[in-house]
Amino acid sequence: MENKIKIGIVGYGNLGRGAEASIMQQPDMELVAVFTRRNPECVQVLNSNVKVLHIEEAVNYTEDIDVMLICGGSATDLPEQVPHFANLFNTVDSFDTHAKIPEFFASVDKPAKESGKTSIISVGWDPGMFSINRVLSEALLPVGETYTFWGKGLSQGHSDAVRRVEGVKNGVQYTIPSEKVIEQVRNGEHPAGSKTDRHVRECYIVAEEGADQEKIEHTIKTMPNYFDEYETTVHFISEQELKSDHSAMPHGGFVIRSGQTGEGNNQIIEYSLKLDSNPEFTASVLTAYARAAYRLNKEGQTGAKTVYDVAPGYISPKSAEELRRDYL
Amino acid sequence: MENKIKIGIVGYGNLGRGAEASIMQQPDMELVAVFTRRNPECVQVLNSNVKVLHIEEAVNYTEDIDVMLICGGSATDLPEQVPHFANLFNTVDSFDTHAKIPEFFASVDKPAKESGKTSIISVGWDPGMFSINRVLSEALLPVGETYTFWGKGLSQGHSDAVRRVEGVKNGVQYTIPSEKVIEQVRNGEHPAGSKTDRHVRECYIVAEEGADQEKIEHTIKTMPNYFDEYETTVHFISEQELKSDHSAMPHGGFVIRSGQTGEGNNQIIEYSLKLDSNPEFTASVLTAYARAAYRLNKEGQTGAKTVYDVAPGYISPKSAEELRRDYL
Repeated sequence: MENKIKIGIVGYGNLGRGAEASIMQQPDMELVAVFTRRNPECVQVLNSNVKVLHIEEAVNYTEDIDVMLICGGSATDLPEQVPHFANLFNTVDSFDTHAKIPEFFASVDKPAKESGKTSIISVGWDPGMFSINRVLSEALLPVGETYTFWGKGLSQGHSDAVRRVEGVKNGVQYTIPSEKVIEQVRNGEHPAGSKTDRHVRECYIVAEEGADQEKIEHTIKTMPNYFDEYETTVHFISEQELKSDHSAMPHGGFVIRSGQTGEGNNQIIEYSLKLDSNPEFTASVLTAYARAAYRLNKEGQTGAKTVYDVAPGYISPKSAEELRRDYL
Repeated sequence: MENKIKIGIVGYGNLGRGAEASIMQQPDMELVAVFTRRNPECVQVLNSNVKVLHIEEAVNYTEDIDVMLICGGSATDLPEQVPHFANLFNTVDSFDTHAKIPEFFASVDKPAKESGKTSIISVGWDPGMFSINRVLSEALLPVGETYTFWGKGLSQGHSDAVRRVEGVKNGVQYTIPSEKVIEQVRNGEHPAGSKTDRHVRECYIVAEEGADQEKIEHTIKTMPNYFDEYETTVHFISEQELKSDHSAMPHGGFVIRSGQTGEGNNQIIEYSLKLDSNPEFTASVLTAYARAAYRLNKEGQTGAKTVYDVAPGYISPKSAEELRRDYL
C-alpha cells in the first residue's frame, strides 16, 4: 500500500469534528493536525494524539499536509479562508451558498492555479451528492422534471432565525417534505407548485419566562423569506425537552427525476439520504473528495474543481482494476 | 452551439430502437445510420429519414460518425463486435456479464489504444448507474454494508430459461425484491442472508395443449442456478393474457448503503430506479455516455474506460459554467 494521504483540518466545530471521525474510518488517510482560531489548548479533539495548532501555524505545514479540509461556515469563513489556503495546499470545502458559487469558484481558481494546487469546492450533499444526481439524471432523461426535497431535518439557518425572535430563549426548526407530493412524483405525476408547497416547517421553541407566546408564534409564521410562504407550526416546549429530544442533527432528502422515453414510458430515478448526523455525513463527503483532490493534483489537474469534474473512481480507495472486477 | 455529435447504432433490437428514440431527445446529437446484420430493407426504424445499412458498410463511415453505440447482446455479439469497432470508432456498449468484465476490458482497451479511440464499456444501469452508486456510497461511508435489490422487473435470462422447459409454449419471469428486507435495510438494520433470500421469482406460463402443468411447475422450481435457491411461484395463463398483461419490459431496483459514522450514527444512502421500459432506459444511458466518449477522445484520453472514469459533467450537454451556476 502506498503512503497514507496526509490531511489537515481547519476549523473544529461540528463539521471539523465529523471530519476527524471520518478520517479514522478511511484506510488510506491520516490526520496530521487540526488548526483553529481559538486557543489550541481549549480545543478537545477526539484522538488525543492529534496536534491542535493555531491557524496561523498552518503556513509552516505545507510540506507535511497533502490536503487541507476547510471546515468553516459559508457566510464569512470560507470566502476568506479557501482562497487563502488554496495558495498553500490542495483543499476541499463545503461552501453552500448556491447563488454565490460562480463568484466563489473564481476566487479560489486563481490562487490554486497560481500555486499549482487543486481545490474541490462546494462538496457535501447539497451542494454535492444531490448536485451530481440532478445532473446525471437530467442527462440520462432529458425529457422530464427534477424534484429536490429536503428533510426531515434540522435546518441550521432557520433555527438561528427563530432564536433571534424576541421572547425566544432557545429553539430549533425542522424542514419536512410533503409525503403526499413525494408519492405523486414517485408515481410519475407532475404536481404543480414550488418548493414552498412541497415542504412544511416545524418549530420547537423554549420561550423566555413571561413572554407572549401568541406574539412569538405570529412573528415566526410571518417572517419574510424564512417562513411566510410555508405552512409552519410552532410548538412550545421546556428547555429540558429541547435538550433531550432535539439535540441531534438529523437531515436528509430526495432528488427525484421523473422522465419519459420513447412513446411515453415513465422512468423514475430517485436518490435519497436519511442521515442521523448531518455534519458527520457532510464531513465524510469532504474526506472522500480529499482523496480526489490529492489524485487530481498528482496528475497535474490544478485550479478549482467541483464534484462535476471528479470521476467516481477518484474518490474510492480501490484501484481501477479492483473497481472493474468487484464493483462494476 | 457547436456541431452536433454524430452517432451510429450497431444492432437494431430493443436496445438499438431505444437508442434511436433516446438520440431524438438529446439536443446535441444526430443519428447518422443504423447498421444491421439483417437485410437492411427489412429493418423498420422509427425515423424513416435515417439510413439503414448492412453492418459491413460501417467501415466506410469512420469519417462521418463520432461515436458508435454497439447494441448487441453480451453472450456472443459484444465480445466480438466491440473489439472490432474499437479499432475504427469511439464506442459505447452495455456488456453486462459481470464476471467477464476484466477480460472484456482488456480485449477492448488494446485496439482502442492502438487506433487512438475511446471506448466506454459496460454502460447501462447494472452495470452502470448502480455500479457508480455502489462505489460512491462505499467511499463516503467506509463502515457499513451495501445492498443491491433488483426488480420488480422482467428478467430476460430467466424468461428464456422457462421458455425452454418442455411443455411451455410461452412465458415470462419477474424478479421481485423482498419489501420486508428492503424496509429492514432502510431502517438501518443489517438482515442476514444472500441475494436469494432477498428476491422472489414469479413466472407466468402459457402451457402447450395437454401439457402436464404440475410437471412444468416442478421443473421450473427445481431448475439449478435459475430457480432452485429462490422462492418461486408459477401461474398458468392464456396466450391472450400473456400478450395483454405481460408484453411490457419494466424493471428497476435499489442500491442501499447503510453505514455508520462517529459514535454509531446511522447514515442511509439509497439510489433507486423504477423503469417502465428497461431497454429504453439502458439505451438512454448509452446515449448520454456517447457524449462522454466523444469529449474524452477530444482530450486525448484513449483506450477502454468504464463509468468509474467519467466525471459527471462529461455526460451533460451543459457547460461547466452552466452546471456550477444552475445545478450545484
